[in-house]
Amino acid sequence: MAINRTATPLVDVPRGLAGVVVTETEIGDVRGREGFYHYRQYSAVDLARTRRFEDVWHLLVRGTLPGAEDGAAFAAETAALRRLPEEVRAALPAIAAASHRSGPLAGLRTALSLLGAARGFGPLYDLDAERRRADTLAACAAVPTLLTALYRLGRGLGPVEPRDDLSYAANYLYMLTGSEPDARRARAVEQYLISTIDHGFNASTFTARVIASTGADVAACLTGAVGALSGPLHGGAPSRALDTLDAIGTPERIDPWIRERVLAGDRIMGFGHAVYRTEDPRSRMLREIALGFGGPRVDFAVEVERRVEAILAELKPGRELHTNVEFYAGVVMELCGLPREMFTPTFAAARVVGWSANLLEQAADPKIIRPVARYVGPEPPVAVPAA
Amino acid sequence: MAINRTATPLVDVPRGLAGVVVTETEIGDVRGREGFYHYRQYSAVDLARTRRFEDVWHLLVRGTLPGAEDGAAFAAETAALRRLPEEVRAALPAIAAASHRSGPLAGLRTALSLLGAARGFGPLYDLDAERRRADTLAACAAVPTLLTALYRLGRGLGPVEPRDDLSYAANYLYMLTGSEPDARRARAVEQYLISTIDHGFNASTFTARVIASTGADVAACLTGAVGALSGPLHGGAPSRALDTLDAIGTPERIDPWIRERVLAGDRIMGFGHAVYRTEDPRSRMLREIALGFGGPRVDFAVEVERRVEAILAELKPGRELHTNVEFYAGVVMELCGLPREMFTPTFAAARVVGWSANLLEQAADPKIIRPVARYVGPEPPVAVPAA
Repeated sequence: MAINRTATPLVDVPRGLAGVVVTETEIGDVRGREGFYHYRQYSAVDLARTRRFEDVWHLLVRGTLPGAEDGAAFAAETAALRRLPEEVRAALPAIAAASHRSGPLAGLRTALSLLGAARGFGPLYDLDAERRRADTLAACAAVPTLLTALYRLGRGLGPVEPRDDLSYAANYLYMLTGSEPDARRARAVEQYLISTIDHGFNASTFTARVIASTGADVAACLTGAVGALSGPLHGGAPSRALDTLDAIGTPERIDPWIRERVLAGDRIMGFGHAVYRTEDPRSRMLREIALGFGGPRVDFAVEVERRVEAILAELKPGRELHTNVEFYAGVVMELCGLPREMFTPTFAAARVVGWSANLLEQAADPKIIRPVARYVGPEPPVAVPAA
Repeated sequence: MAINRTATPLVDVPRGLAGVVVTETEIGDVRGREGFYHYRQYSAVDLARTRRFEDVWHLLVRGTLPGAEDGAAFAAETAALRRLPEEVRAALPAIAAASHRSGPLAGLRTALSLLGAARGFGPLYDLDAERRRADTLAACAAVPTLLTALYRLGRGLGPVEPRDDLSYAANYLYMLTGSEPDARRARAVEQYLISTIDHGFNASTFTARVIASTGADVAACLTGAVGALSGPLHGGAPSRALDTLDAIGTPERIDPWIRERVLAGDRIMGFGHAVYRTEDPRSRMLREIALGFGGPRVDFAVEVERRVEAILAELKPGRELHTNVEFYAGVVMELCGLPREMFTPTFAAARVVGWSANLLEQAADPKIIRPVARYVGPEPPVAVPAA
C-alpha cells in the first residue's frame, strides 16, 4: 500500500469533481431551476439588455458597474490596447498557416500565448492587483484583433487594423469584414457577447484558476483556458444548431425530420441543457433579438423551435427540453454576418473576460491547487529488467 | 441562497484540494516517508541508473519497458519526429523575439501550441488510443528542438538541426551547443531527465488532465501544463541552488553565511522538500553523478551540503532538512554545460513525457472534470443602474 505523499488525510470525491466546491466566488452563479444567472449581484440578461460590453467587463474585473465617466475612461483604456505588438504581428501569418487544420481556437491559443510574452506579462504573485488587472485588459482587448487577423490571413486577406473609436463589438465586426457594421448588428453582437462572458463554473474557468494558483502569468492562464474550451465536451458549437436548420431545410420537413431523429435516439442540436430546467435565459433574449431582425430565416427558426418542443413533449413527456443558448446564438450571429467558423471564437472573445475575472480572484488567494491521485497499479518496486 | 447549478449534492473539500483524490492512476507515485518514488512498478531511480530515456518514455506512454528490438524501434520512431514543420520554423524567430522578457517557458508554451496546430492534432476523444499516443510522441520529440532553437535565436545564433542518430539527451545537448557532447555528459543529462519525467501528482499534471478531460487536443493539454509549470509556486528553479553556491563563494564563508540566513528565517535554496522526510532519492543519485565528474565545484557543493545539514540540525533540531532535487540537479547541469536559464526548460523537456502519460490515461476515461464554486457575493438580483 503506497504511503500518501503528504500527511494530509485523503478525501474521496465524485468522479469529475461533480459537485465538489473548489472555491468561493463573488463573480457569479447559475440558478438552473429558476432559469437565472448573474454576474456579481446583477442579472446577466438585464446587463446585456441595458449596458455596453465594456461596462460589464469593468463589473467583472473591477467589481463594480462604472458610472458614465469611469465607463468612458475604461472603454478608452481598453480600446487603446487593441493594437498588436510588432513581434506578434510578424508571427501571425505563420500562426494562421499552421492553424488551418486545428481550427481558430488553436490559432488563438498560440497567438494569445505569444501576445502575453511580447507584452512581458509577469508571474501573478510578483504583481500588485492593479498590474495583474492591467495584464488581463491587454490580453482581452487583443483577442478580437488576433481572431480577426488570423481569420483573414487564413483566407489570403490582410488584417484590418483596429479602430479605437468603435465599441468592442463594433470593432470586432469591423476588423472581421473591413467595413463598419450598422448599429443594430453591432448591438446584437454586443448583447450576445455580454450574455456569454461568464456562466457559473466550468472546465475552462477551472483551468484558468488552477494555472493562476501556481502564480503563472495571465497568458499562461488564458492559454490553458482556451485549450480547455477547445475540447468538444466543453466548448459546444453554436454552428451545430444552424446545421440542424439547414438539414431540415423547409417547414414541411420539420416534423418527419425531427421525429425520425428523436425516435432514433439522436440528440437534436440546439435543444436541452445540463443545468437549466426552464427555458435558457440567454435563449429567450437572443430570440427577441432575432425577432427584431425578422425575415424568413428567423420565422423558420421559430417554427422549428415550436415544432421540436411539441414533438419532444409528445415523445419524451416530463423532460423539460427547450432551446439552449446555441440555437438562437447561431441565428443571431448569422444575421450579423459572422461566418460559422467564427461562432466559437466569438464566444471566446467574450468568455476571456470571465476567465480574467476568475484568475484575478484566484490570484488574490495565493495557494496552489494541487490534488492527489491514488496509485492503483502493480505494487513497486519490481526489479528493472536489463535492456 | 443560490440554488446549486445541478442537482449534485455539494461536497466541501480542503483549500487547494490538498489530499483530495481526483483520479486513480497507474503511472506512478511518491512515498515521502520512504524516500522512494516510482514510474509504474519500477523505482524511478533504478530506471535512471540502468535504462535510456527512450525506454522509460515507452514505459510511461505504452505501459511497459521495451525489449531490445521494441526499444530500438521506439527510439527511431521518436527520433524521426524531432524535425519541425516548416510553418513552425518560420514562426520561431518572432516567438524568440517576443519571449525574451517572459522567459523560455513562455516561448515553449507558444511554440508547442503552434506545433500541435501544424501537426493537425485532433480532439482526444475523436482519436483512437494509438493516434492519441502518436500525437504525444510528436509533441515530446519536438520539445528539445523548440527549446534549443528559441534559446539560440534569442542570442542571435541559428538553430541547429536535430540529428536522429543521437539519443534524446545527446541530441538535446548537440542542438543547444552545436557540437556533439561527450558520452559522460550526455549520460548524466539523460539520467537527470529520466529522474524528472514524473513525480506524483502536481499542478501541471492536473492541468493537463483537466484540459484532456474536455477532449481537447494534445497541444492544448501540454500548453496548459507548461503554463502551470511556469508558476513560481510550482516550477521551482534548479538554478537557485547554484546562486546559493555563488553567493557563499568560498568554503570559509559557508558557516557564517548559512547561520546568518537561517537565523534571519530565510529559506536556504536547494534544501527541504514538501514531501520527503528522508533524503530526496533524486538528490542521492545526482550527487553520485556529480562526484563522478569531480573537481573543485563538486567538492564545494558537497561541503556546503555537509555544513548546511549540520547547521540546520543544530538550529532547527528535529526537522529533516536535506538537499532537494534542485541542489545537485543544478550542479550536474552546470557540469554538463547547460546555461542556467535552460535548467527549468530542461526539466520541462523531461516532464512533458509525464504529462503525456497522464493526459493519455485521462483520455481513456471520457468524463469532463468540472467542479463547482460557491457564490458568496451580494444576493442577486439587484436592479441594474442606468448607465
